[in-house]
Amino acid sequence: MELWYTEKQTERFGITAKIKETLHTEQTEFQKLDMIDTEEFGKMLVLDGMVMTTEVDEFVYHEMVAHVPLFTHPHPKNVLVVGGGDGGVIREVLKHPSVEKATLVEIDGKVIEYSKKYLPTIAGALDDARVDVQVDDGFMHIAKAENEYDVIMVDSTEPVGPAAKLFEKGFYEGISKALKEDGIFVAQTDNPWFHKELISKVHSDVKEIFPITRLYTANIPTYPSGLWTFTIGSKKHDPLQVEESRFHEIETKYYTKELHKACFALPKFVADLVK
Amino acid sequence: MELWYTEKQTERFGITAKIKETLHTEQTEFQKLDMIDTEEFGKMLVLDGMVMTTEVDEFVYHEMVAHVPLFTHPHPKNVLVVGGGDGGVIREVLKHPSVEKATLVEIDGKVIEYSKKYLPTIAGALDDARVDVQVDDGFMHIAKAENEYDVIMVDSTEPVGPAAKLFEKGFYEGISKALKEDGIFVAQTDNPWFHKELISKVHSDVKEIFPITRLYTANIPTYPSGLWTFTIGSKKHDPLQVEESRFHEIETKYYTKELHKACFALPKFVADLVK
Repeated sequence: MELWYTEKQTERFGITAKIKETLHTEQTEFQKLDMIDTEEFGKMLVLDGMVMTTEVDEFVYHEMVAHVPLFTHPHPKNVLVVGGGDGGVIREVLKHPSVEKATLVEIDGKVIEYSKKYLPTIAGALDDARVDVQVDDGFMHIAKAENEYDVIMVDSTEPVGPAAKLFEKGFYEGISKALKEDGIFVAQTDNPWFHKELISKVHSDVKEIFPITRLYTANIPTYPSGLWTFTIGSKKHDPLQVEESRFHEIETKYYTKELHKACFALPKFVADLVK
Repeated sequence: MELWYTEKQTERFGITAKIKETLHTEQTEFQKLDMIDTEEFGKMLVLDGMVMTTEVDEFVYHEMVAHVPLFTHPHPKNVLVVGGGDGGVIREVLKHPSVEKATLVEIDGKVIEYSKKYLPTIAGALDDARVDVQVDDGFMHIAKAENEYDVIMVDSTEPVGPAAKLFEKGFYEGISKALKEDGIFVAQTDNPWFHKELISKVHSDVKEIFPITRLYTANIPTYPSGLWTFTIGSKKHDPLQVEESRFHEIETKYYTKELHKACFALPKFVADLVK
């Protein structure tokens, strides 16, 4: 018997992956959670029928969410990750020696539990002494925080279901308040082939709040279209003006200091979305 | 009834696209040719079960094959395209006013015929007065040419079937001979997620023949992994050393002069393939 996982990334297009077995499937309080073992991409976490991360290509997303803002900030000490219960972003955050504390606020404790169980190379860093894991609503956490964080990373699911409010302007205003005076945030903002309007809207909202707003991309094979965008809002530090001396050696598989700048050079049709 | 086209891009992973109808299907002298009309990507040309081009995302591949070498060469007059029977690369080549002649050598006349019939926005340029269309073996054409072309573009199918010999070192030696003393060539060299060895081997072969050898990438949603590579071999002109004044205005949807440089900034795992 051959088992294939097929995800309709749009109503009319999708990916299909041969699987060895389903490791876990559960309707949590917030979403449908599936952990499957695929032949091409290793273990794969699927939430509400959408690939969140896989063992083989997870490094792209996690490195690019973390290192672009962290190398932009001159001395990040206190970092917040909203969502990201698989722990991959936290793992990358901890590679920066200046970071004293990394808080993870994930709404769904089951994501943390099953990532620790089945994706230890991704979730292992959640047990680090510098990490504070909170199973809580990221939106509410942001609403209560003030002048607290150097860098905030929004590692959310898609703008449907539990994460919908993480794509609203009010959330970005809360982030601005939660950040210190030279703080910076990044959010994953989906792909420019199937979600053009979302990227334009987020960029326009963030631009009204943050003096420096920029879009960058990375290639993630298991995400729709393979081209993913990230939106940065920054109060003071420009990701395109990082001094050479700021880049310290760091072990990565995707991020490089050359890519740090190059990832902001957008294909024309993407640049046009945020003009 | 719902019809879906599913392509196994590897034995264990693929894409699936909802289709309106199959427009044409034929076993040509060289390969299986299918033209289908998909809902997400418009009309799609499939050769030997692999997506070659689609109306929606074709501009990425065609612009990036053509404009990177053409803006690198200071004054390209005589251009050769090997393969590329859909005409998309030729369409982009003709956007450069310095080009006096563009020769297309496509082994399979059926690809030209059905591209003209079903993909007129891509193949229309093949009727331009500056274009010489030859239905012939590109390998043999190269073997006979000497000191003739400014720029050669190898727009081939995958390294199986009719295009296999277009990935051999002897072919690149022939290209070097066919190029003028300051000539430059580019070849599509598949993706770095599933075909690491191919990229390394081509780069190493080309490097033994051309003093300047470089790899660049572009995002193509309907190609395996969404990340595609192109290998450049150049006798004199470096794509990373193009003078600002060389870039003239050109209508594109993907290529920009900023991307011209940024596309050479490789993800670390890709850079490691060509070290």
